[in-house]
Amino acid sequence: MADRRGVITVISGFSGTGKGTLMRELMSRYDNYTLSVSMTTREPRAGEVDGRDYFFTTDENFEKMVEEGKFIEHAGYCGHYYGTPRDFVYKRLDEGYDVLLEIEVQGALQVKEKCPDALLLFVTPPSAEELKKRLEGRGTEAPDVIKERLERAKEESKYIDRYDYLLINDDLDRCTEEMHSIIQAAHAAPGRNTELIKTIIDSLYTIH
Amino acid sequence: MADRRGVITVISGFSGTGKGTLMRELMSRYDNYTLSVSMTTREPRAGEVDGRDYFFTTDENFEKMVEEGKFIEHAGYCGHYYGTPRDFVYKRLDEGYDVLLEIEVQGALQVKEKCPDALLLFVTPPSAEELKKRLEGRGTEAPDVIKERLERAKEESKYIDRYDYLLINDDLDRCTEEMHSIIQAAHAAPGRNTELIKTIIDSLYTIH
Repeated sequence: MADRRGVITVISGFSGTGKGTLMRELMSRYDNYTLSVSMTTREPRAGEVDGRDYFFTTDENFEKMVEEGKFIEHAGYCGHYYGTPRDFVYKRLDEGYDVLLEIEVQGALQVKEKCPDALLLFVTPPSAEELKKRLEGRGTEAPDVIKERLERAKEESKYIDRYDYLLINDDLDRCTEEMHSIIQAAHAAPGRNTELIKTIIDSLYTIH
Repeated sequence: MADRRGVITVISGFSGTGKGTLMRELMSRYDNYTLSVSMTTREPRAGEVDGRDYFFTTDENFEKMVEEGKFIEHAGYCGHYYGTPRDFVYKRLDEGYDVLLEIEVQGALQVKEKCPDALLLFVTPPSAEELKKRLEGRGTEAPDVIKERLERAKEESKYIDRYDYLLINDDLDRCTEEMHSIIQAAHAAPGRNTELIKTIIDSLYTIH
């Protein structure tokens, strides 16, 4: 086990906000981060590697794992299951990695319920105008796709205040550094330093 | 009023932890910080300037201000009153400054009660051994002084988990940067961005 346990960090945000780019940038700059790997019951696609892109499994095994409480969040989508395996994430945290999970709002709230010390970050574009531009894409999107994105963003926006932090993605460099600061600051919460606090208190009572 | 309202940051910690040095270092590196100025009923000492070192006032005026709820924390010490004036701090916050308050534990908890979005930082030495060394001073302190510091530290240590963050002052440079990260991260909490969230939600509902 590492000196310092990692922090589970959940990243959500409106479609097109650049969450993936941010996470890649963060990982390229600092070596304390790692991505969570989801488990799914869908078939592997060409080039996908088991244990890297996903853990692939059967419906039967997935359902058994759900019953055993082995996911920190899971959902069904298009007839397949997707979930974040607890053991995999916890092993990484014990190794000292800050584990990044990109999940939508409902999954994020599941994680917070099961792991109250998870850090929830919501990424948004810098302004309403920019949000609109990104929702509409490059003008090549079909109207029903834009409508769907907008409806989804409306739904997601109701939950922003359930998140610990709101990140404005106006500039990749600035936003990456802010994200890093926020996650590193989380390591200093007393709840993540109970051993250290205990050591300090004990030492105060044993000094002569 | 500034673009971004400041964060009230309360700094507490065991005697000899270097809180003052940390705060001076933080202010010399970044220009978004300012110190709170306390009000007191004691006489000015030589060289002290009203409005810079303290706001000096009468017992009568102090007591009137207490009744009117004009302090975010106050206490009596050696026959004099000391308090943090709300209006002064709020003006600085509105100007965009992150306001630093060095206060002991009971005062810190008063601030948290009156200003729930205040950020509470507790600074400790890096280890039990180092704490002991600092409590004992340079070996020139009288035994009763050491004993008093130890008793006070024991009392303070009970409240560490009421703080938002625990800062280990092992290295001035590292600790200053960590403190800066923590305070800047606090700006990204949804509770400090209600206007922005409202703007985003409104814009989602008015896009056609």
